[in-house]
Amino acid sequence: MDVVVPFDGARPKTRLADRFDREQRRAFATAMLRDVLDAVRAAGGAPTVLATAPVDVDAPVTVDERPLTDAVDAALAGADPPTAVVMADLALATPRALQRLFARDGDVVLVPGRGGGTNAIVSRESGFRVDYHDTSYLDHLRAARDLGASVAVVDSYRLSTDVDEPADLPEVLLHADGRAREWLREAGVSLDARGHRRSTAGE
Amino acid sequence: MDVVVPFDGARPKTRLADRFDREQRRAFATAMLRDVLDAVRAAGGAPTVLATAPVDVDAPVTVDERPLTDAVDAALAGADPPTAVVMADLALATPRALQRLFARDGDVVLVPGRGGGTNAIVSRESGFRVDYHDTSYLDHLRAARDLGASVAVVDSYRLSTDVDEPADLPEVLLHADGRAREWLREAGVSLDARGHRRSTAGE
Repeated sequence: MDVVVPFDGARPKTRLADRFDREQRRAFATAMLRDVLDAVRAAGGAPTVLATAPVDVDAPVTVDERPLTDAVDAALAGADPPTAVVMADLALATPRALQRLFARDGDVVLVPGRGGGTNAIVSRESGFRVDYHDTSYLDHLRAARDLGASVAVVDSYRLSTDVDEPADLPEVLLHADGRAREWLREAGVSLDARGHRRSTAGE
Repeated sequence: MDVVVPFDGARPKTRLADRFDREQRRAFATAMLRDVLDAVRAAGGAPTVLATAPVDVDAPVTVDERPLTDAVDAALAGADPPTAVVMADLALATPRALQRLFARDGDVVLVPGRGGGTNAIVSRESGFRVDYHDTSYLDHLRAARDLGASVAVVDSYRLSTDVDEPADLPEVLLHADGRAREWLREAGVSLDARGHRRSTAGE
């Protein structure tokens, strides 16, 4: 499976600006990207990074300075289906979770992100195009159905968890075991540093 | 599968207090509970509600005013394994997601909640006891391993999403289709009412 991994190398992880400076955010984002690339390869995928600026990783990098939607659409238009698009901030992604994604039948397979985003796509439909604005998950569902494509949704906590803001950091510490988790630990981020939510209001 | 569904009927959903008054919170929590009970039954489970106060639902209700951990432990001690514990605020739960939980092999099967909680458990090990304080997911992993029990973790966004705070409400609107979603819509909650997060910082 060809896998496009979009990466914002110019302004990564701006919603972590209260926590980390620009260089730190770039280092953390790159650590997550490398973890994702490892997981994609271990799942049998062939990743290409689609970056807004050059980035030093062990994978082919295509630099495209356009906004995310335009860059991904150009990549899809230039590829032979199937093509997957997997976001670079899925720090909890495992080979097993990605194998479930790649193996799922459907002309268009979607993984929603928390808040209505789209964390991953497999497109086997040459006409499918993306739109990452606003609640992109609903837009992608609609776009696939408008094409008459069959749609499947993968139910994975690991793939639906993108790491964007401070409240997402405990998930990396709890459930990841790669470079991103190590980077957070070395940066002094711990589970105790912010309240871990309880499962119910019962106690 | 016998399924215990803990429900705080006395002080439900306190973290939604900025959004809904007490009666509204109770109505919303009860709507979620009823959706969960439907999904449990459709997945082949036999639910019993374990409530801190009486609640009018179409299922057996056991009232136990003790804190969550004590009440669930008493329920587990009095049951023949296997027993599942499924939280009442999993508004995104579907029969399919619960079937994956019930069918997963393992002496102890866990579903983490966002923030380190434990949203669902299947215990086939009569000695397993719960502890819902703090990061209960890590405690439950440790407790199962200390018993020499085999542990499995189910990777499901639907089951890992518990609805506790305003930021969780868009998930119900996006991904659920039962009473809880209908209640939110009738209460005037819409996706436009709060920023839906974008999947990446790229645009």
